[in-house]
Amino acid sequence: MTRRELLDGIVKGCMIASLIDAPSVFEGGMAMAQETEKKNAQAGPAYSGMNQIKPLRFDPTKLKGLSEKLIVSHHQNNYSGAVRRLNQIQQQIGSLPKDAPPYQMGSLKREEIVATNSMILHEFYFDNLGGDGKASGTISNLISSHYGSAGTWEQDFRRTGMSLGGGSGWVILNYNYRDSVVHNYWAADHTNSLAWGVPLLVMDMYEHAYAIDYGANASGYIDAFFQNINWDEVNRRAEAVQRR
Amino acid sequence: MTRRELLDGIVKGCMIASLIDAPSVFEGGMAMAQETEKKNAQAGPAYSGMNQIKPLRFDPTKLKGLSEKLIVSHHQNNYSGAVRRLNQIQQQIGSLPKDAPPYQMGSLKREEIVATNSMILHEFYFDNLGGDGKASGTISNLISSHYGSAGTWEQDFRRTGMSLGGGSGWVILNYNYRDSVVHNYWAADHTNSLAWGVPLLVMDMYEHAYAIDYGANASGYIDAFFQNINWDEVNRRAEAVQRR
Amino acid sequence: MTRRELLDGIVKGCMIASLIDAPSVFEGGMAMAQETEKKNAQAGPAYSGMNQIKPLRFDPTKLKGLSEKLIVSHHQNNYSGAVRRLNQIQQQIGSLPKDAPPYQMGSLKREEIVATNSMILHEFYFDNLGGDGKASGTISNLISSHYGSAGTWEQDFRRTGMSLGGGSGWVILNYNYRDSVVHNYWAADHTNSLAWGVPLLVMDMYEHAYAIDYGANASGYIDAFFQNINWDEVNRRAEAVQRR
Amino acid sequence: MTRRELLDGIVKGCMIASLIDAPSVFEGGMAMAQETEKKNAQAGPAYSGMNQIKPLRFDPTKLKGLSEKLIVSHHQNNYSGAVRRLNQIQQQIGSLPKDAPPYQMGSLKREEIVATNSMILHEFYFDNLGGDGKASGTISNLISSHYGSAGTWEQDFRRTGMSLGGGSGWVILNYNYRDSVVHNYWAADHTNSLAWGVPLLVMDMYEHAYAIDYGANASGYIDAFFQNINWDEVNRRAEAVQRR
Repeated sequence: MTRRELLDGIVKGCMIASLIDAPSVFEGGMAMAQETEKKNAQAGPAYSGMNQIKPLRFDPTKLKGLSEKLIVSHHQNNYSGAVRRLNQIQQQIGSLPKDAPPYQMGSLKREEIVATNSMILHEFYFDNLGGDGKASGTISNLISSHYGSAGTWEQDFRRTGMSLGGGSGWVILNYNYRDSVVHNYWAADHTNSLAWGVPLLVMDMYEHAYAIDYGANASGYIDAFFQNINWDEVNRRAEAVQRR
Repeated sequence: MTRRELLDGIVKGCMIASLIDAPSVFEGGMAMAQETEKKNAQAGPAYSGMNQIKPLRFDPTKLKGLSEKLIVSHHQNNYSGAVRRLNQIQQQIGSLPKDAPPYQMGSLKREEIVATNSMILHEFYFDNLGGDGKASGTISNLISSHYGSAGTWEQDFRRTGMSLGGGSGWVILNYNYRDSVVHNYWAADHTNSLAWGVPLLVMDMYEHAYAIDYGANASGYIDAFFQNINWDEVNRRAEAVQRR
Repeated sequence: MTRRELLDGIVKGCMIASLIDAPSVFEGGMAMAQETEKKNAQAGPAYSGMNQIKPLRFDPTKLKGLSEKLIVSHHQNNYSGAVRRLNQIQQQIGSLPKDAPPYQMGSLKREEIVATNSMILHEFYFDNLGGDGKASGTISNLISSHYGSAGTWEQDFRRTGMSLGGGSGWVILNYNYRDSVVHNYWAADHTNSLAWGVPLLVMDMYEHAYAIDYGANASGYIDAFFQNINWDEVNRRAEAVQRR
Repeated sequence: MTRRELLDGIVKGCMIASLIDAPSVFEGGMAMAQETEKKNAQAGPAYSGMNQIKPLRFDPTKLKGLSEKLIVSHHQNNYSGAVRRLNQIQQQIGSLPKDAPPYQMGSLKREEIVATNSMILHEFYFDNLGGDGKASGTISNLISSHYGSAGTWEQDFRRTGMSLGGGSGWVILNYNYRDSVVHNYWAADHTNSLAWGVPLLVMDMYEHAYAIDYGANASGYIDAFFQNINWDEVNRRAEAVQRR
């Protein structure tokens, strides 16, 4: 497959995507994709905008206390929208004129990290849902030894979530490579993230994660989140970290 | 060594640190460390605040176009200050009263991620200085294949830096685990960072990284940075990623 | 009335507030208010935390396309919560020990501007709802002459809103004192705001402003917002600016 | 003068500006200005990008402890750069295609508020320098009555500044219209600002405000700032607020 064929594929993929679920917004990106195809053909995947949307791995009708409507809207609009937007942004960065003022580069790069982290964190979030909420194994040991007890850790995680209620953000239990300790980190928007580590458990605190079901009741949402944690997935992540 | 002995050691270490180079600022943290010792003794390393300052690995008198005065001030004040501050913050989080309002938790957690990333990114930055500026090997291959050419990559990296000139931030060449592609990411402050990846090459764009030598001439600083990149270190990071 | 009596009143007011609608969150602040009463008695209103909650000026059952449930939740939880939190924060700043590390001051000051702007912008927002959505008079003239046409202005305002959909923020039509021109400004959180001007029309784009009624359909919410704008209030604001 | 003539003047002004002091950066904006002239001709001053650079009102060789080199670099690079950039951004917003994706609008609007506030705050900052540092009159009365004492206020202002040392931001003594009280507000970047008030005293804490003279010694800079405050200007601002 030549690069030309690859890029033809991308443009066609964009067209199909735009026909399916985001036509009006996507038109601008479509025109852009075609115009800049020639330019990006000389570049590599950093500018190709080829990120794919990942489907939910669990049945959205089966969560406890989180409705199908909420989960499907969250996945189709907020997550999928971030992936599509990221693809547009990467193509636009790759085709920015050489004499464009620096602020244009900066503003696009900011949009890129916003959309990239939104994509990544949503994928971790959805993938750590769909379980029975019962922690055990590697992650339980890490939490207990690094926070003193599972209860102390859970209180810290929940309070960090509550501090974000009514606004936006994420709570991320990360394995921090600097000190080899797990920490619950606060993020007030998609850009805030540990610089060197691996997310183990991710809780979305944007209001789109709960307002449809819980209104302003962030605490009720956090309870529901805990009941649906897929600790097997969290353990897979923790074990992958320890194997490296 | 019992946990009690360990914590005694931390408090004594704090006292020594405070005697050496940050007495006035550190007093509050010292009092705090002592008061909360008992409480933190029941918790683990997530709240212990035991991060150590790492020395420079290169001779700061030997860089091309970056003065000893600049580098030493950067390391002693900005980097070391972040490590000391982080230790205070982690202890304070561990001793926050259970009935404290949520905003208190949120504000401390924000300070924690600010100081954590400042520590981490400064360590990557200093460690990728002290070289001869000549790229080769694994990282050259990654850059060329993901950006189309080394020139395209370098232009992208420099322009991202220029968009941050006169302000604050970082340019970070990350290996992104989501798409297995290297990308130059923009960060306007310490909190902005890729959610899932590994920093390969880090350039500090806070004005403390260059104003002493270059004033407002961010472009001159970026030239000097490129001349001093330790590509061997960057290659070690890239190869570690590929081995995992 | 002595300052002592005034502060007794504040503490009692806090107690009443805590009994009514935020007991668990408020307890920490209550203890703090009492402990620090003596200290704040020597200071002035900058630290007194005496901001009052303002009631809705319109009947929340009468808006077009925005439910009573949504509006009342928004007012009671998001807006009123910000006022209560601000009062706690101001008292805490006033009682911060002199030897506290600088990051503690910075983090509280950040919380203060977040809560202050949340209070102010929510008040402007609610006060510019409850109307018939028909613009005329001073504001129509300002908009047309500064944007070329009312249509151009409205498109700019709506697109700025759409850029914030699925996240957080505000769209604020400000009178900018620097150039004496009205501009639609973007704000991604409560802290982003024009440094020298007066808000004329404020649209909340936090998801709590619409998700209960519209889910992820930000565009539907913006349509409803426009139908309910109280342009008489906007004109009062614009005329006050021009009189000064 | 027709609008056509006015816009011809703008484009010529841009050309002259680009010849004088920012040629390489400005070229992109120049091409843009010409292409979009026709479109902006139908719009008003919100998109015209006509902000002018204001000269220093004091002799930069005469400040105590702040060098001419520092002040002139700050004015020519950081402040003037913001004004020129703002003009480009406003023109670009005015010419954004109707079908551009929402993120493009959002990213330009973000750049607009960053540059607008940088322009405004720098103007307030320079204008409140060049004095003898001795406070009296209206502002002294406001400070004492709202903070309890001048000493309490100054400590609060200085500590807020110290919390920003080594990073970016502003300390702004604002008259807050909501409570009719003066407050020292923290800003970590140009976008953070009180939503409804008037700046009375502004201190730049970006490192470009001091690193050339003071390196990492933020405390030394704050001392120098206080020695040069033009309290007559601060009083003019305070009295204008009280007259309205």
